[in-house]
Amino acid sequence: MKPTLLYFFGKVQKMKAAGEKVLGFTLTTPEFPPPAFLEQEVAKVYEDSFPYLPSGGDFVFRQQLADFYSTKWKRKFKEENVFVGTGGKEILYILLTLLLKKPEGEIVVISPYWATYPNMVELLKGKIKIVKALAKDDFYPDMDKIAKAITSKTRAVIITSPNNPTGKVIKEKDVKFLADLAKKKDFVLICDEVYEIYNYDNLYVSALKYFNKNVFCVFSASKTYSLCGWRLGWSVGDKDIIKEMIGIQSEATTSPNSIAQLAFRNLFKDTKRLETYFAENMARGKERRDLAVAAFKKAGVEYAHPEGCIAIFVKIPKEFDNAYDFCTELLKKEKISMAPGEIFGEKKYFRMNLAVSITNLKEGLRRVLKYYGN
Amino acid sequence: MKPTLLYFFGKVQKMKAAGEKVLGFTLTTPEFPPPAFLEQEVAKVYEDSFPYLPSGGDFVFRQQLADFYSTKWKRKFKEENVFVGTGGKEILYILLTLLLKKPEGEIVVISPYWATYPNMVELLKGKIKIVKALAKDDFYPDMDKIAKAITSKTRAVIITSPNNPTGKVIKEKDVKFLADLAKKKDFVLICDEVYEIYNYDNLYVSALKYFNKNVFCVFSASKTYSLCGWRLGWSVGDKDIIKEMIGIQSEATTSPNSIAQLAFRNLFKDTKRLETYFAENMARGKERRDLAVAAFKKAGVEYAHPEGCIAIFVKIPKEFDNAYDFCTELLKKEKISMAPGEIFGEKKYFRMNLAVSITNLKEGLRRVLKYYGN
Repeated sequence: MKPTLLYFFGKVQKMKAAGEKVLGFTLTTPEFPPPAFLEQEVAKVYEDSFPYLPSGGDFVFRQQLADFYSTKWKRKFKEENVFVGTGGKEILYILLTLLLKKPEGEIVVISPYWATYPNMVELLKGKIKIVKALAKDDFYPDMDKIAKAITSKTRAVIITSPNNPTGKVIKEKDVKFLADLAKKKDFVLICDEVYEIYNYDNLYVSALKYFNKNVFCVFSASKTYSLCGWRLGWSVGDKDIIKEMIGIQSEATTSPNSIAQLAFRNLFKDTKRLETYFAENMARGKERRDLAVAAFKKAGVEYAHPEGCIAIFVKIPKEFDNAYDFCTELLKKEKISMAPGEIFGEKKYFRMNLAVSITNLKEGLRRVLKYYGN
Repeated sequence: MKPTLLYFFGKVQKMKAAGEKVLGFTLTTPEFPPPAFLEQEVAKVYEDSFPYLPSGGDFVFRQQLADFYSTKWKRKFKEENVFVGTGGKEILYILLTLLLKKPEGEIVVISPYWATYPNMVELLKGKIKIVKALAKDDFYPDMDKIAKAITSKTRAVIITSPNNPTGKVIKEKDVKFLADLAKKKDFVLICDEVYEIYNYDNLYVSALKYFNKNVFCVFSASKTYSLCGWRLGWSVGDKDIIKEMIGIQSEATTSPNSIAQLAFRNLFKDTKRLETYFAENMARGKERRDLAVAAFKKAGVEYAHPEGCIAIFVKIPKEFDNAYDFCTELLKKEKISMAPGEIFGEKKYFRMNLAVSITNLKEGLRRVLKYYGN
């Protein structure tokens, strides 16, 4: 297993604990506040939080999520289509555990990828097949190449939209194409849509709009509600797949924690206020996206144009051979931590989290731009 | 995969949701309160709970746990010996994932077993080797039989003490024997000690007292603090094993939720008050153990004498062929839910949770004893 982002993050944490001042841009952790009205909701749940909740998630919360996404994407989802997990991560891990039960399964992943996908597949003894999105296409994936990568052993194709680390958003016609392809070729189209609210250029369409039993979409409280520590995610998919996932979760972690689930159950009693919150965070993200894009553009630095997500994927200075070396130098000399592109399968790029304070973002940009002759 | 306890529990939840009055004794959920002083601690953590915590657990909390168990068992544990998980269950799942990475691994499990062990091993494509503890020995496991079950493929032996479902506690000399055997034969002795505080006959000794690098002990907030829903567990083991487990957790769930970890970090700032809480719960458990034992004894019913844990393992009436049938009848006719022994590998027994209110316990005993001619 390759070094993980969280390993890198642990290093920064230890530097901070030792009193060093580090500006962190490694994780795509939104440093935006969760909804202001959440605090009052969580305060109410303590007494009810002691007993076990059922595997797959609290029934009421699952129904609320089914209703929420039914309304949002004009489809008809039921409680049995919803699976709640210990972060979007656990949902992916359990789904891949299920899909890779039969040996020799292949999972198609687009690079640059979220580092966890190949690590998970390796851990679960599956075979990973990488389809490269190219810098010349601004890292937008090639649908023909994806279609050609499908074989009888393909159990799933993982799509991230809005994409982490590149910020690209899959166009609606391509979402439809992939959903149809999944049905036709009988693999699962896993759509990691945890950055659903960060959609700056109005391009994002959930695969739920083209839902069929081969489509599976993942969302998270970490990214949508800035609650990374709470470990809560949810997903919408085929009821038979979800039934089997519940069986696995009941042996792996039982369920996500009750406090987060019960607080969210309260939160979803009134979904109108959520829309306002989403819009506020979108505006925060867009302000930072625009600021970073302008800075890198002005400096003549190559980057992928982020249409969504909360990060920017930037080419390293030509003096450096690889991003590991560059990021190590940035951490050591400039006390800023970035995520080296090797983790995402692109050694000439690094990822910078944008969802930080404007002050820290400007300071981070100032320090990194020194390396580009600015 | 066999039907799980949580599947059964889900059934009862749905009956309750449909308005049926069911007395539940299926899960070993302590219906005792968590520490009264916990509420004020959890109220303080909200603002700090948003960002990710490191995989393996919060550093401060890990150090607190290391200190706590160092003092308790007069050994010297460090932060690096502690791993925190989404319940004791996730810890076991990740440890078994690690130990079964190399193919053809065998895991030795004592029956009657906690249903989850064989289900996990099956899911992780390992081979399970059952060593039967017998009713004639009051279900106390035979050390010679365990030693004989070890082969070069043995990756771990799982011991549960105090035992769920039988309530037996492994004697100190046998704990030492097994810890030495693990070192000599180089397997991991996994000691599931989640019922550590329920030790009615003063027999329980943690394997941490005889710790070596092949010993790994698991504990949980679910059982020790009656916080099943919070999904928090912790463990003490070899630092190299734990380092690898952190790598797996970082890809599977990231970490347990921040609210529980930060609240426990506050809780552990003052461990004296915890001792009082443990003693209170022990007394509650003992009162119920004594009550249930007296009732079954008086009725001439066969059962394993519980020296610890919060359940009693009871022989089904002779009119019934198996516990599934008996428990199904109890649920249907008497509206009480028990856990059928098939789940634990003993089809002539059922398990009854004792950690309920005295009123419910008496009522449950009354309803079940009807089937024994009482």
